[in-house]
Amino acid sequence: MRIALCGGTGDIGEGLALRWARDSPHEVLIGSRDPERARKRAADYEEVLGGRGVEVSINGFANEMAADRADVVVLSVPAYHLADTVESIADRLDSDSILVSPAVGMKRDESGFHYNRPGSGSVAQLAVNAAPDGVPVIGAFHNLAAGMLTNLDAGFELDTVVVGDDAEAKETVMTLAATIDGLRALDGGGIDNAAEVEGITPLLINLAMNNEELHDLGVTFR
Amino acid sequence: MRIALCGGTGDIGEGLALRWARDSPHEVLIGSRDPERARKRAADYEEVLGGRGVEVSINGFANEMAADRADVVVLSVPAYHLADTVESIADRLDSDSILVSPAVGMKRDESGFHYNRPGSGSVAQLAVNAAPDGVPVIGAFHNLAAGMLTNLDAGFELDTVVVGDDAEAKETVMTLAATIDGLRALDGGGIDNAAEVEGITPLLINLAMNNEELHDLGVTFR
Repeated sequence: MRIALCGGTGDIGEGLALRWARDSPHEVLIGSRDPERARKRAADYEEVLGGRGVEVSINGFANEMAADRADVVVLSVPAYHLADTVESIADRLDSDSILVSPAVGMKRDESGFHYNRPGSGSVAQLAVNAAPDGVPVIGAFHNLAAGMLTNLDAGFELDTVVVGDDAEAKETVMTLAATIDGLRALDGGGIDNAAEVEGITPLLINLAMNNEELHDLGVTFR
Repeated sequence: MRIALCGGTGDIGEGLALRWARDSPHEVLIGSRDPERARKRAADYEEVLGGRGVEVSINGFANEMAADRADVVVLSVPAYHLADTVESIADRLDSDSILVSPAVGMKRDESGFHYNRPGSGSVAQLAVNAAPDGVPVIGAFHNLAAGMLTNLDAGFELDTVVVGDDAEAKETVMTLAATIDGLRALDGGGIDNAAEVEGITPLLINLAMNNEELHDLGVTFR
């Protein structure tokens, strides 16, 4: 399977790219608005993995080219770029494509970080609204710290909650998620349940800020 | 220390009462609007613990009497009874009292359970607004399943996130929480951070509904 990380030059995109390229048999494509930057970062990721004895090919493209070639497109962009990014790749998507939304909108005040819930209900719902009809949108990978994903010396045992209304697409993303070592995919139900999942991300930051022994946190349910 | 569980006849109140009475040196008081019911449930809890070789004294009172005698008052009532309950005990509280809010407002739709965020920002903030001036309110114990707490055969390793603006009161509640075997207390920051903690509770229910192997869930951060 081919996974495109649109915005794959950012930190969450980097972490997912490195982990999938290392742990799974799937092909990883890096997308960026700037194709030259995508190619450069893809080469960086190959080098990082090569230095650890993992010889894989990672290629970089403009977002629309990466989306065109991929089976699953992860929108690893800030929440405020999500709709633009979906629109920029929309004519490269079809009903066999799967869009994945890991983005969370946050705001900060004196007390800490807070979930900035969009009027549509969730960031995942923003992606649904921006996506062409018939292209399934799945929410996943919200509650993973970039610093932990990108540190390939760090092992973890964490969960990611996956939400979406298309059962087959959700199953595909859950299977993809579980190919990352130490990551368990849990079914969170429909896309209407995305807000509560997205809302955990600012809490993880607040916990890291207020507890000396905790940093780069994820979550498990048991 | 004396801990009053106002609404301690309900399932979360029962779970916390049993765990504290079994695991900590603290005295547990059960409060209810109906003092006779409080006494009966207190006797039930004593019997459950006695059957397991734990001989402790648990007494039941009307909520206001329980609050009057306690150092820490846990408002283990549904979110929609929270303000009423605080008002009913208000003249028994003083600046040495600590109020604890574990309640979460939820609503359900076809997709699952959702956090029903109060206009004031959180249920904990509702308690702050209802409490007399100078009485600290701490949010804690939101993300614990009653079925797990009340099943004394169940061991667990879980976290509770504690939020509040009074550092000393928060420290007291964190210490109390950690007296429960297997429970780790984490500092979630100020009361303005309560919403993200409360919002996890409906997610726990959604996960239990959608994943066969999961039930009576709690959460850990790492």
